Amino acid sequence: MESMHSPAPDYSPVNRHEPKWSPQEKKIARRVFDQALQQELDEVVQKVKEMARDLKEPSEVWKIEAYLTGRRKSIDADYDYRYSQLPLLFGQLVSRGRIRVEDLQGLDEEKLGFVRFMTKNR
Amino acid sequence: MESMHSPAPDYSPVNRHEPKWSPQEKKIARRVFDQALQQELDEVVQKVKEMARDLKEPSEVWKIEAYLTGRRKSIDADYDYRYSQLPLLFGQLVSRGRIRVEDLQGLDEEKLGFVRFMTKNR
Repeated sequence: MESMHSPAPDYSPVNRHEPKWSPQEKKIARRVFDQALQQELDEVVQKVKEMARDLKEPSEVWKIEAYLTGRRKSIDADYDYRYSQLPLLFGQLVSRGRIRVEDLQGLDEEKLGFVRFMTKNR
Repeated sequence: MESMHSPAPDYSPVNRHEPKWSPQEKKIARRVFDQALQQELDEVVQKVKEMARDLKEPSEVWKIEAYLTGRRKSIDADYDYRYSQLPLLFGQLVSRGRIRVEDLQGLDEEKLGFVRFMTKNR
């Protein structure tokens, strides 16, 4: 996870290069973002329902709290809807198999190239 | 809750009076303490199962986390098994109807008197 936040071509602050997002691209980004986030939340809900159902010892209930706290922090950190951050997020989501590069069809070549660059060795 | 922690006869540090606990009293205290704590945990488990089952929106899952964090902190604060603190805890538990004074039968008159003192206006 940490390594995904390291500087990468064209998106590090040093380059001071901010790609533009067309209205059409923004629409695509919003849809992919929302769907992926919804999927994460659905998985958390599913997992919590299972954990609650399968509790063996009452004291294990705190494991549910720990799980939720961990997931909330990680989701909060990952799902950062700033246009400058979206290519990084999309690269991560492709790396994790949560979305495919094809879901991003319609973004310009610069953004898609960045996502491919992030994911090509995975 | 806060008011329960205010100084009370015989138990404030100023009095420097620490009642003795006989082995028999310690056994009673342990049993009452464990049963009350178990009951609290059972209620938390029950509530979490209901919350998980009744989730309407995925994002409501974080309410379960908030509920658990609140309960854990409050249970941690309340269930303090130091002999100096037990009469306070038992007084609280009687006040809340979680235990009855009769459950403490076998503690000496000083301790029972303190519990009754804490609970008489409730």
